Amino acid sequence: MTDINAVAVLGTGVLGSQIAYQIAYAGLPVTAYDISDEILESAKTRFEGLAARYEKEVDGAAGGPAQAALKLMRYSSDLRDAVQNTDLVIESVPELLDLKRDVYTKLAKVAPDSTIFASNTSTLLPSDLADATGRPDRFLSLHFANEIWVHNTAEIMGHPGTDPAVYQTIVTFARRIGMVPIELKKEQSGYVINTLSIPWFTAALKLYVDGVADPQMIDNVWRIDKSATEGPFQNLDRVGLKTVYDIYARSGNEQMQAIAKVVKEEYLDKGRLGEASGEGFYKYAETPTASAKK
Amino acid sequence: MTDINAVAVLGTGVLGSQIAYQIAYAGLPVTAYDISDEILESAKTRFEGLAARYEKEVDGAAGGPAQAALKLMRYSSDLRDAVQNTDLVIESVPELLDLKRDVYTKLAKVAPDSTIFASNTSTLLPSDLADATGRPDRFLSLHFANEIWVHNTAEIMGHPGTDPAVYQTIVTFARRIGMVPIELKKEQSGYVINTLSIPWFTAALKLYVDGVADPQMIDNVWRIDKSATEGPFQNLDRVGLKTVYDIYARSGNEQMQAIAKVVKEEYLDKGRLGEASGEGFYKYAETPTASAKK
Repeated sequence: MTDINAVAVLGTGVLGSQIAYQIAYAGLPVTAYDISDEILESAKTRFEGLAARYEKEVDGAAGGPAQAALKLMRYSSDLRDAVQNTDLVIESVPELLDLKRDVYTKLAKVAPDSTIFASNTSTLLPSDLADATGRPDRFLSLHFANEIWVHNTAEIMGHPGTDPAVYQTIVTFARRIGMVPIELKKEQSGYVINTLSIPWFTAALKLYVDGVADPQMIDNVWRIDKSATEGPFQNLDRVGLKTVYDIYARSGNEQMQAIAKVVKEEYLDKGRLGEASGEGFYKYAETPTASAKK
Repeated sequence: MTDINAVAVLGTGVLGSQIAYQIAYAGLPVTAYDISDEILESAKTRFEGLAARYEKEVDGAAGGPAQAALKLMRYSSDLRDAVQNTDLVIESVPELLDLKRDVYTKLAKVAPDSTIFASNTSTLLPSDLADATGRPDRFLSLHFANEIWVHNTAEIMGHPGTDPAVYQTIVTFARRIGMVPIELKKEQSGYVINTLSIPWFTAALKLYVDGVADPQMIDNVWRIDKSATEGPFQNLDRVGLKTVYDIYARSGNEQMQAIAKVVKEEYLDKGRLGEASGEGFYKYAETPTASAKK
């Protein structure tokens, strides 16, 4: 089994930067790649912001470790340079099939033959990309959640041609960088988390859109019945209502479209974008408490 | 608005006895009705068991209050006697349409004209029963969750003919007996809780039945991503796998039937009935901890 000792992360967006920083925080050298030096400059600010959040929110990060992670990071806008001497390249570029396939085609030409490629894609299957990688046996999906330092899952999903030994290497790597590996035995659109979340969101939104109950009531039932920290509308506010709108607007289904319409007209058009904007289904001056008991 | 000062509960099964005891625990006199004195004798043992659980699990119940509640309870197997001088009758008899309609027809003849009737039905709509009550304006559903002292929701659902003042009386009553009232504005099969739970259960069970991931992995993702106490399979074990089987076996849908088959063959037939039997998706010597972090 290959050991993963050096990693490159392609893309320095919200998720890509969290992945790269978490790897460095776990003590592995990491190269953050993006398409221009300007983007990399603003990424550096993002990485410093992550170090500050870890110092506040992660036990043991303050007083050195969070800053030390920054010193394990290297930046490059030259793909060949970024991936030289890496054991693993994690791709976290925008969620567009043609763009991703193009990135893999270029990457295949410049990466060492032995390097494993992993995609952080949310919506595509590894099968959609495998042939573009030039190394389908050393390719799989490795999917992280937002706020990786709290929601520390790594969903690992191969395609039928993925080498089982490569899969196990990535399970070990995920654990080494502080993730709980979630091992999918088959390709599944939406992995485990979205396969569970979307029907739950849809049921909650439909109750609201159909006028059966208010978001606060719906969340209350869920929290109390499941002894849960948050209900579906609190979670939707965290996901962000623009993302929620995109999920529902994409669907041809009439019920999904009705949901998309309400999210747009009652929320997006009124500047209520979710927790990050200060208001969504809840106003964040008056965040509901974790406990639902009166 | 009518004040609710005396209540009868029809049926002393798992839910009926919890409802009656909780009302007495809140300080209101309550009559527990069932069809024979033998059943009522065993119900008394159940009420004593509830008092003992409250003493252990409910703050302030020990040292008097839990025992005092038992003194507010009266038992009767004579329907006319049970419901005399009551302001509210809560029906919690077995979940069979004809049986429930028959109970309401008999109840209508012997209850005071002013008495409100409320059904704890899980699967029927108040519309299915309203005409049998002889007082559709004073009839609605009032749905409690199992382990009422922890999962203290009361879902309140009228039918189109329910008097809004009666609805509000029941909201006030629910709050008075320590429940969080969940006000449904329309009839909704499955109320809020089952409308949210069933698609979540189905998605989780399908991932497992299709061989995508193990119950433990699936629960792990949910707990970590949602900062939740329990995942779907932990919750299914609490619900009990016989109930889960019944839900899926009832459906004509091919996917639901495939789920029912696996639950029967891999769990029920092997004596794995869920948490109460010591084993379901988990063995209860090795209950997963609430926190999913490694």
